[in-house]
Amino acid sequence: MPVYKALIQYDGTRYRGWQSQKNGENTIQGKIVSVLSRLAEKPVEVQGSGRTDAGVHARGQVISFALEDFWDPGELLAAMNRYLPEDIGVLSIEEAPDRFHARLCARGKTYLYRIWNSSLPNVFERKWMDTISEPLNTEAMAEAASYFLGTHDFAAFCAVKKKKKSTVRTIHEIRIEREGDEVRIWVTGDGFLHHMVRILVGTLVEAGLGRREGCEIPKLFAEGIRAQAGITMPARGLTLWEVYYE
Amino acid sequence: MPVYKALIQYDGTRYRGWQSQKNGENTIQGKIVSVLSRLAEKPVEVQGSGRTDAGVHARGQVISFALEDFWDPGELLAAMNRYLPEDIGVLSIEEAPDRFHARLCARGKTYLYRIWNSSLPNVFERKWMDTISEPLNTEAMAEAASYFLGTHDFAAFCAVKKKKKSTVRTIHEIRIEREGDEVRIWVTGDGFLHHMVRILVGTLVEAGLGRREGCEIPKLFAEGIRAQAGITMPARGLTLWEVYYE
Repeated sequence: MPVYKALIQYDGTRYRGWQSQKNGENTIQGKIVSVLSRLAEKPVEVQGSGRTDAGVHARGQVISFALEDFWDPGELLAAMNRYLPEDIGVLSIEEAPDRFHARLCARGKTYLYRIWNSSLPNVFERKWMDTISEPLNTEAMAEAASYFLGTHDFAAFCAVKKKKKSTVRTIHEIRIEREGDEVRIWVTGDGFLHHMVRILVGTLVEAGLGRREGCEIPKLFAEGIRAQAGITMPARGLTLWEVYYE
Repeated sequence: MPVYKALIQYDGTRYRGWQSQKNGENTIQGKIVSVLSRLAEKPVEVQGSGRTDAGVHARGQVISFALEDFWDPGELLAAMNRYLPEDIGVLSIEEAPDRFHARLCARGKTYLYRIWNSSLPNVFERKWMDTISEPLNTEAMAEAASYFLGTHDFAAFCAVKKKKKSTVRTIHEIRIEREGDEVRIWVTGDGFLHHMVRILVGTLVEAGLGRREGCEIPKLFAEGIRAQAGITMPARGLTLWEVYYE
């Protein structure tokens, strides 16, 4: 069976997240499975590089799936875009090696968190950003960010800790940019726990508002208590930007 | 009575255009009048620099209104943004001379028309652009655009010609840019007839697709027949960018 790798983007605003739900709720995976199964005229399984939560967006989500019959990638791309809703788009499709699996083969990811840091509204970008009107000190945020680099136990930075599952992850880079009234936080790592980016950004935001010192972060790693880390930032500001493979 | 001048932006997607309707339809002017009248505790009249059609957006619409009581501009701005829906925003408010009127004093305007010129989707910007998948020749568009510069009778370039009303207008500048898969058309003039920008852009698009020659445009001015000019481009791609005053 030919295996395909596809790059997709979505506006997550109106979805219950990436992952299909048993009760048939509105999910991005559910929409893609339904279009592919219709095209293939039989059930198709689709793997994503990882889940995104309800309301989170993606510019570069990667998916994999196998079809019984060969499809020309360009024709498959056009057919998928014809049937998908306009808030989910397929940017490219290629044939992949048989053993390719979007989640198991992923080696790292970059997420972008966007904050509109102004007391004035931004009606055009509002769906992709969280708004914080109090001025953020991006130098303090960058200083705090430096404590996250490297390999740490992120138990304090995830929503629900599953017993016996490792909460150790490696952050390769955190970049903080300001462009006018917008603050962008780019986080690259080998993998992310549930809500990890949103809690990490929440902790940086608290540093940027002067409510927390970067030097407290090693203690958060050591103690692993969720309540001591920052708030979980709203989903709307988060975008899965890129997924890396070998 | 103090007179105020405000700069507003809106996502026009879900509105029946700028202008209030007698039957109470959903309009941008209607929303603003309702918020101002609530704040002032009496009916307030609001003038816009001009109407925008259903589905057209604005980054720099200018409005004027008089209030019986003095309001601090910053407090008025914060109060308006608190009560307006999130797809309408007030960017600035200042006190203006008594004789200031957003429409009567306007000396010119710039509109932006955005086209997504790709066969691939763009889920994030889709609401602000029209999509044309066939490649546009922007050099041919710029050549055709040069015929519009200056003062002409735009009778062939407006939706409904009102008898005895002049259809002569002056275009100061048309700039056509390509950035990746996006084509942007900036049109600056002293004033615009109903649908004029959308028909002008439709005519440029036909030139960009090789279906029309720029040198036919003087004949369109001379004959003034709407059916001979280009199509009316969809409203979603159009944004009122800036309004000029003396």
